[in-house]
Amino acid sequence: MKIEGKPYRTIWLAPDGWSVEIIDQTKLPHALAIVRLATVEAAAQAILTMQVRGAPLIGATAAYGMALAIREDASDDAIERASAFLAAQRPTAINLRWALDEMRRAVLPLPVNARAEAAYARAAAICDEDVETCRLIGVHGRKLIDEIAARKNGAPVNVLTHCNAGWLACVDWGTATSPVYQAHDAGVPLHVWVDETRPRNQGASLTAFELGSHGIAHTIVVDNAGGHLMQHGDVDIVIVGTDRVAANGDVANKIGTYLKALAAKDNAVPFYVALPHSTIDWTVQDGAEIPIEERHGDEVLKMPGRLPDGSVVTVEIAAPGSPAGNPAFDVTPARLVSGFITERGVCAASREGLLSLYPERGVK
Amino acid sequence: MKIEGKPYRTIWLAPDGWSVEIIDQTKLPHALAIVRLATVEAAAQAILTMQVRGAPLIGATAAYGMALAIREDASDDAIERASAFLAAQRPTAINLRWALDEMRRAVLPLPVNARAEAAYARAAAICDEDVETCRLIGVHGRKLIDEIAARKNGAPVNVLTHCNAGWLACVDWGTATSPVYQAHDAGVPLHVWVDETRPRNQGASLTAFELGSHGIAHTIVVDNAGGHLMQHGDVDIVIVGTDRVAANGDVANKIGTYLKALAAKDNAVPFYVALPHSTIDWTVQDGAEIPIEERHGDEVLKMPGRLPDGSVVTVEIAAPGSPAGNPAFDVTPARLVSGFITERGVCAASREGLLSLYPERGVK
Repeated sequence: MKIEGKPYRTIWLAPDGWSVEIIDQTKLPHALAIVRLATVEAAAQAILTMQVRGAPLIGATAAYGMALAIREDASDDAIERASAFLAAQRPTAINLRWALDEMRRAVLPLPVNARAEAAYARAAAICDEDVETCRLIGVHGRKLIDEIAARKNGAPVNVLTHCNAGWLACVDWGTATSPVYQAHDAGVPLHVWVDETRPRNQGASLTAFELGSHGIAHTIVVDNAGGHLMQHGDVDIVIVGTDRVAANGDVANKIGTYLKALAAKDNAVPFYVALPHSTIDWTVQDGAEIPIEERHGDEVLKMPGRLPDGSVVTVEIAAPGSPAGNPAFDVTPARLVSGFITERGVCAASREGLLSLYPERGVK
Repeated sequence: MKIEGKPYRTIWLAPDGWSVEIIDQTKLPHALAIVRLATVEAAAQAILTMQVRGAPLIGATAAYGMALAIREDASDDAIERASAFLAAQRPTAINLRWALDEMRRAVLPLPVNARAEAAYARAAAICDEDVETCRLIGVHGRKLIDEIAARKNGAPVNVLTHCNAGWLACVDWGTATSPVYQAHDAGVPLHVWVDETRPRNQGASLTAFELGSHGIAHTIVVDNAGGHLMQHGDVDIVIVGTDRVAANGDVANKIGTYLKALAAKDNAVPFYVALPHSTIDWTVQDGAEIPIEERHGDEVLKMPGRLPDGSVVTVEIAAPGSPAGNPAFDVTPARLVSGFITERGVCAASREGLLSLYPERGVK
């Protein structure tokens, strides 16, 4: 999508033809900084420090991280080491593991001297596939927005989203935002309630930045506000992304998603989860099995922001000496989810629903 | 309660015998600043800018604001003007209106030259009554904590609270925190999950400050985390305060309370609301009638905090140019509330429950 009129992806091959460039998302929305990754260690660090984040983009970065590793040492041993190293950086997003499996499958059968080229090709393909997947999520999800718009007589459709499942979380388009971008581009009037998404504020900093850059009407609200908005009829549909979907339809997503799903259910607001196939973990039968990352309490106790002179500082915002807990994700039970929006269409949030779109997974 | 070993109230008569001193809560937790109020305008400003906040303390400050006004002009006209002026500062907390009614009732029947003395006496009594009321809330609420402790074999009772319904919201003891202080002082092991409470962070800044100053184990979490904690059995009881209770038991409280109530219900965690009688609005039949204050979006977009050198600055935290919405309260339906803890005991969250403790309100 565009930033100040210029089209961007979140990750691309550098002009040197072998290193990789990313938008450093820890610097957004205060600055647009491009970072070059030249080693697998740098790719791992980018994932760990959340210079890149969002399940699909984590996968894409890990894929290029493998290519960088294989360029230096294409032996079986080195490939397994790099894969294990990258996999250890973030525990919740399943796309990380999925991308690493794809890369190993693409290169391990090949002779050692053919592996680097194949790795770069597969990493590039993973990125291109993600773009097409996200585009298709938007094609299918747009119909949900169109149906609401048809009932609203020209009044804007109010979408609420949590965290950033936008193009900055993917390679382009986004998952939860793809239906929004496509409806907007087709002239459907809409407005997005953007949950701030503490502690890392991906909503207020990334989603608001994305939507604003694309010219979509939006309003930032604190994470506490969504229930109140739904009680007052100010939300027509909730669309969020996910870091991992269990085979039974339970959804791991950014902490707080569960609370919005409860409020949506209580107020009969449709609650949809947008995801590419790579986010479904068919090996996990129940959301309770999904590991939930516990991050450092400083993310809760400190906050980066801009001073009036434009410089960026980090301030301590809590009572001195008080400790903080920081679970990064929660699990929304399938019973609270109206449906999944995938690149193959919309389905019920259940094993049967998922199998209706991915029947090949039912054959064992 | 104590700050660094020294006992404080949140509001008191200054040494000059007529002006009023408060703790400036907009400076907490970064600094302990005392502000002197010498006019009704200063008292109104303190309420509006949230130097004082919390329903009972707003009422106490308004009472002293009336005394300051009457000291200057004790005419009927001036009294009505001051009352209307103070009432307009914050719309949601019913205690403000309650305290103003109490003051008018105490002084209007008296000759003009006796009104100032009577006003100071009534304001002081409102403060003392609030302290005793909060103490009694703790006596009754402690039993709920004791019952849980008896089942936990010495493991700490985990209480979750939202916003600050502590002694800083009252004159002393607090409402939601009074049972916690009294259980702790009696040796019951407990731990409090403190919701940060965006946008103004009263949890992370005020409740954590209070609990830390009193030596109570606590952990700050973002507002998004409570549902996840409840799903994992890490919360034994939720206790919150309220700004206004409707006659049917619906509860207006800080934005986000409704989401925690939904999660408590979904996980069979008891959800209690602590309140003094002055927070019940018998004239409002249903929570939907309670006016919800919409505050300035800058509270969402900007954040005060400490730099490493100890100085306090305000930083912008969101995408430049994105607007923010800021509803300050939400309404939790009575069906989600396990019970009320009042100075007269614990009752069901319903008209019948409230009338069982306040039967005099049933006689019309």
